[in-house]
Formats: sequence, C-alpha cells, structure tokens
Amino acid sequence: MTAFAGGGLLNRRGLLKGAALGGTAATFSQGVFEVVHAEAEAPEWTTIPGEEVRGYGLPAPQEAEVKRTLFQIYEDLSPEFGFSGTPLQKLRGAMTPNGLHFEVHHGGRPEIDPEQHRLMIHGLVERPLQFDLASLDRYPMVSRVHFIECAGNGFLNAVESEPQDVGLDVLAGLVSNAEWTGVPLSILMEEAGVKPEGKWVIAIGADAAGLSRSIPIEKIMADGMLALHQNGERIRPEQGYPMRILLPGYEGNMNVKWVTSLQVTSQPAYTRDESGAYSDPLADGNVVRFSFTMGVKSVITHPSGTMTMNGPGLYGISGLAWSGGGAIERVEVSADGGTSWADADLQQPVLSKSLTRFTIPWRWDGSPARLLSRATDSEGHTQPTRADWKARYHPSNINHYNAIQAWDVTPDGKVANAYA
Amino acid sequence: MTAFAGGGLLNRRGLLKGAALGGTAATFSQGVFEVVHAEAEAPEWTTIPGEEVRGYGLPAPQEAEVKRTLFQIYEDLSPEFGFSGTPLQKLRGAMTPNGLHFEVHHGGRPEIDPEQHRLMIHGLVERPLQFDLASLDRYPMVSRVHFIECAGNGFLNAVESEPQDVGLDVLAGLVSNAEWTGVPLSILMEEAGVKPEGKWVIAIGADAAGLSRSIPIEKIMADGMLALHQNGERIRPEQGYPMRILLPGYEGNMNVKWVTSLQVTSQPAYTRDESGAYSDPLADGNVVRFSFTMGVKSVITHPSGTMTMNGPGLYGISGLAWSGGGAIERVEVSADGGTSWADADLQQPVLSKSLTRFTIPWRWDGSPARLLSRATDSEGHTQPTRADWKARYHPSNINHYNAIQAWDVTPDGKVANAYA
Repeated sequence: MTAFAGGGLLNRRGLLKGAALGGTAATFSQGVFEVVHAEAEAPEWTTIPGEEVRGYGLPAPQEAEVKRTLFQIYEDLSPEFGFSGTPLQKLRGAMTPNGLHFEVHHGGRPEIDPEQHRLMIHGLVERPLQFDLASLDRYPMVSRVHFIECAGNGFLNAVESEPQDVGLDVLAGLVSNAEWTGVPLSILMEEAGVKPEGKWVIAIGADAAGLSRSIPIEKIMADGMLALHQNGERIRPEQGYPMRILLPGYEGNMNVKWVTSLQVTSQPAYTRDESGAYSDPLADGNVVRFSFTMGVKSVITHPSGTMTMNGPGLYGISGLAWSGGGAIERVEVSADGGTSWADADLQQPVLSKSLTRFTIPWRWDGSPARLLSRATDSEGHTQPTRADWKARYHPSNINHYNAIQAWDVTPDGKVANAYA
Repeated sequence: MTAFAGGGLLNRRGLLKGAALGGTAATFSQGVFEVVHAEAEAPEWTTIPGEEVRGYGLPAPQEAEVKRTLFQIYEDLSPEFGFSGTPLQKLRGAMTPNGLHFEVHHGGRPEIDPEQHRLMIHGLVERPLQFDLASLDRYPMVSRVHFIECAGNGFLNAVESEPQDVGLDVLAGLVSNAEWTGVPLSILMEEAGVKPEGKWVIAIGADAAGLSRSIPIEKIMADGMLALHQNGERIRPEQGYPMRILLPGYEGNMNVKWVTSLQVTSQPAYTRDESGAYSDPLADGNVVRFSFTMGVKSVITHPSGTMTMNGPGLYGISGLAWSGGGAIERVEVSADGGTSWADADLQQPVLSKSLTRFTIPWRWDGSPARLLSRATDSEGHTQPTRADWKARYHPSNINHYNAIQAWDVTPDGKVANAYA
C-alpha cells in the first residue's frame, strides 16, 4: 500500500480498489474476526415481537449520551444566558439532526405562540407591512443547506494559553448544519418597497433579551431568508420558532431568532449586541465592529480530543470543513505535525457555506503523532496557524477563531487537544 | 404579470424581480396588512426570561400534530405489523427530520443492544467475517442523501376505484429522505473475498420477522452501503438501529434494517418476503418478482388533499419529485387538468435518487381547478397516467404505484384527491 504523505496517510483510491492490499486480508479493525461457528445463539430481539409504530421517533435509549454539551463556564451569568454545543465527534456526514443543533441565547428560549407572533417590516419603506405565520406559508419558498456558527466558536483555544484537554463539542461545537427553508427576504422587502435611502435593516428578536443586529440591505436582498423550516419540519424553539433570519456565512448572532421586527434605516443602529460581545478587539488596540463573515475552518472529528485509539493499524480519518466565504475547495491533512500534507477526499456535492465532510485513510504505526487539518475555500483563503491568529487579535478576543486544530496521539492511543 | 401556462401558472423569474408586478402591491397573502400602529402591545414572551438550554431539542409543543400517520387499515394484522407515513404536506425542503422518517416493519421495532449486535458476512467468500459496531466505526465512511420508498407507497390510489379523500401522508407518505452515512459494502465484501460464483447476497434482519431479501452482487458492489448514521446521528431504532443496508433507488423493503447476516450465494433465495408481498402481479397474469428500482414519481405537497385554500390570489405551489433510476430532470405542473403544462423550478443541487423540491407560483382565480405534476428523470422516464398504470398491472397490485397525482380545487377552496 503506497503512502500518500508522511505519518501513514494513505491513498484512498488504491486502498478501496483492493489492488493495493497485496493479497493480504488488510482490515480497518481489530474487532473483526473470522466466523468459526456460523450458528450463533439467537439474541432475544430476534425471537420476540418488537414495539408498535409511533408518531414521532426518538434516538435509541443507548444513545442518550449523544446530546448537546451545556456550557457552564460563566457561573456568574443567569441561566437564561445559555449555550450548548453540537457533539461533532459523535456525528457522521455533514447534516446536524435538529435535536443536536447548537443553541446560544441571551434571554432564554422563549415559548412563543405562533398564532400570536408577528413580523413587522417598517422604517424606510413605502408600505409598512405586518405578517403572521399563516400568511407567510403561502409565499414561494427556497431551501438551502447552510451552516450557522457562533462568532465565539473556539473561544477556549482562542484565550487559553495552554490547550485544554476537552472534546470537540467544547472546542468547536457551536457550529451546525441544516437545510433551511423559507421566504427570500427580497420578496418581502419588495412588497414593502425599500426607499432609496434604506441601506441597513435592524432585526430584532422577540426573546426577553430583544437581541438586535444591523444587517446591510445588500445581504438581505442577495440571499437573506426568513427561515420557517429546518430539515423539513418547523424550526425548533431554540433555533427561533416560529421564524428566524438566515444570512448564509454570517456570524450566528446576526441570524436573528424569533424575529419580530425588520426596520429599514439609513445607518446601522450600533446596538448593544454588535458594539459589545460581537466586536473583535485587535492587537493594535482597534476594534473590528462589523466582522460579518465567518472564516474558513476545519476540524478532524475522528479521531479527536478525549478519544482513545484501539491499537495501531488502519483508521478512517474524518472531519468537517466550512467557510462563510463560499465553498470548501481543499482540505489537507497532516499526520506528522505539518511536515507533510495530503489532500483529503471531500463528500460530494460540495455546497457553498455548508459543512463539508472530508475523509482520508491512515495507518497508525503506534508512535506519537500529531494530526492537523487545513482547509482552503473558493475565495483562496486558508486557515492560519494559532500563532498567526493570535498575533492579529487582542489577547482577550474570542470571536472568529479559525486557526488550525491539532490533535496529539500518544503511543497508548490517547488523543488530546494541542496547539500546533 | 405574464401567465406561463393555463390556469394561472406564473413565470417565477418575472415575478420575483418585481418588474412584472405593474407597480401595484401584489402580495401572496390575504393575511398581510399594512402597519397602522407601529407600537403594538408587547407579547408576554418578550418580557420574561425564557427556558434554559437542554441536551436534546424537541419540536415546539404547538407542532404536536406534525407527526407520522399510523396506518390501521389492516385490522386483522397484529400490532407488530405496522407502518407510519411521513406527513409530507406539513414539511418543506427535501430533507425528512429523523423523527418523521416513515417506518414499515413486519415484526415490530426491535430493541437491539448495539454492543451485542453482530453482522456476519459468509457463504461464498474466502474468509467469513463477523463485525461489531465498534469495529465498523473505524472504517472509511461515505455520506449520501437518498430517499427510501416503500414498494407499496400509494397503495390506496392503486387499488381503490374511487379517489379517497385523505391527505398526502396517507396517499404517498411511505417515502422519506435523509443523509445516510456508513461503510461501502464493497470494502467489507473485498475483505471477506467474494468467490467468482458469488452472484447474490441474502440479507437478513435481526427483527422478529427475520426479514430477508436477495440482492444482486453488482448492486452491493456498485453503491450498496452498510448505513450507521442518519442525518448525522446514529440510525433511529425504527430505521434499523444499529445498522441497515442502503441500496439507493431500490424498493424500501430491500434496504434491510437491523441487518445481521449477509450470505453470498450463487442464486436468489426466493424468500417469503420477495415471493409474497413484494412481487407485482401483472394484468396478463404473470408476476414481476424482482422489481427492484422505484419508478419516477412526484406529488404536489402545497396545496394538497384535505387542505383549504384561503381565497383567490397568489400562491406558491410546492412539491416533491424523485426517481430510483437517477436524478430528476424536469417537473411539469398543470393547473387546468393537463390541457397545458409549465416547467417548475427545481431546488438546487438536484441529487440522484434523492427527493427534489419543485416550486412554481400560481394565481388562483377562484374557479374550479385541477392541479397535476409530472416528473421526468435522467433516464428519460416520465410518470404514467393512472389509467396507463392500471392497464399494466393486475387490479390487486399495490406495488410500484407511480402515476400522476391530481388534486381538485373547488370554488370554496377545498382540495381533494382526484384521478386524472
């Protein structure tokens, strides 16, 4: 089997054709064994009738630990300021099931009566309009698969001087991917009639925090969506039920949930939310206030931090890459700490501003290894090293962290967060 | 606004650009109204803190009626023979959330201990092998979005001489769409080493029914998957937890759930499942035994049977199309019972053997209308009329029904199942 790059990364095509196996029964697993007794004892569930059909399915009871991780690092904050991360290291593929989509809210998850909820479009428009959910259901809708990522995703790696030995849910779980369906905001804005001096839209949520953000009218008209459905069904309460703004590629906080007001203005509002937690302090003392687009990023999910390898041998390395700037063009993987790199395979089709799954086979020889992934997007942007990222920002900045994620593998198989 | 075809079907491009609106405030909704008092009374949920974060999200309580429809038409069958349909008319986009993926089982939903479950590959192979779940997790995986459709989807329209006035969940809900992730069966078969005389694979499930089907080895090697994940998370119990076979485009029953045995043979097994319920009797007295591929099909989901239109005016017609033979090439919609047809827009990207969402705007003038959709796939196959479909099969056949679905709209807005 021909190595593809240092540290044991392999050429998938040769591998999968079997030609490179050299006639031996190479296997990815220590857990595979030849069948000695073809007649095994029948397990109980093959012998008794199972359960009846049900209206709404749930995961198997044995998967109860596959859940969002609740962050409790800010003990001084009220319970209503909460966030929970997607357990990326327990998922496969590129879609996030609705029950595991990450959530961040500043005033708790509101329980909104969808029949009472209204969306108002007003300000610098010819005809201020108000919509209820039933009326919006009649509009033409579009569906697109997009990630949403919290601006603060990766905050621990951003601010901690030593790498914390935690899992990927904690290190990068504030990103999820779904098929969103809703009404293009351009249709609603055209019905209201935006006046020529209307350049910004102030979006306000109906939650207790009244979260509000200023959005350029160009983004609203280009691909902004009033999202009503998430992976087919109605948007979940913690993702904005009954309606939210979707701004593909923009930081999560701007995709205002439970949206109730869109006010067209000539200037941004400089709201608390955009002037405070969602501005990015730079190393030189300046502050980036409107850093809308999320950068290109990738993480290896299998293996990843806190996992233990099951002995030397063949493994399928797998991970996720995404960029707010467009489509993922390339993901390189290194198994020797960056000395050599190999191109991973990308799950097809690669969609713009969507999580993209990458895979590459790896033969681990049992010696210490450092795994890295480095994504490049269709705009030509490549992930920085952590040192380069830190050099740009003030030490306190937690936003827009997109540096290369490293995992150290020790000879006893332990996988841990590392700074490359 | 220029009509696109008879009965009020409109050209989306002109419509969305607003240029065709003729300067008037055309709207899709009677429920939209101009804002008179900009300061409305604040609803309660904007004034009190919301709920805390949680590990696994659920739909809003107000969506409790968005659930699978449990079929109870066979009162003489035991509860373990059950099936439930996806409420297609309540969903948008092309993905089916895991909780609403249709289910059919012949022996109930088994409760399998994933640590005890084994998959055996044996028969005409060099090395009979047995896999547990942990060992399979180490393999290279692929992810693909594919529909699964029960061979009997549409059975009511197939056998009832008069159109039944029921919803789309009953008429066509035994089809769903998900991103499936798992190990290509070709890798596992190559490890076992299929002997030259091995031409079929007999797949057996670990449920009480011991469902078993014969699968051509060519399909197994081409794109057969041992699926372990569904929309990211582990496969749900009713979809085969912890593992199932996925055969893109093949009738649902062959995608054996809870799979525990893959036996390579030289001949099909002619199991009860393939010789009985899943054979298709023809009009001429013959029987099609191995009718694997699901035909090209489409349904308008909005509006659809049992819904009521909210008065004349603009509507966004929306629906789903799919084919086991490949990608959807074209969907035509008629609003005048087939006298004229217009091309609907297809949600991009169009994926092979996946549900594909189509949309077209429609101005309903309040007169009686008959809505039809007609899909054509990449192999050039087009849906038959019901009469043509019935002419081919024996009157008792319920399998592979893919005729054009018609909806009649009465002047009072009622939408009902019709035979075109």
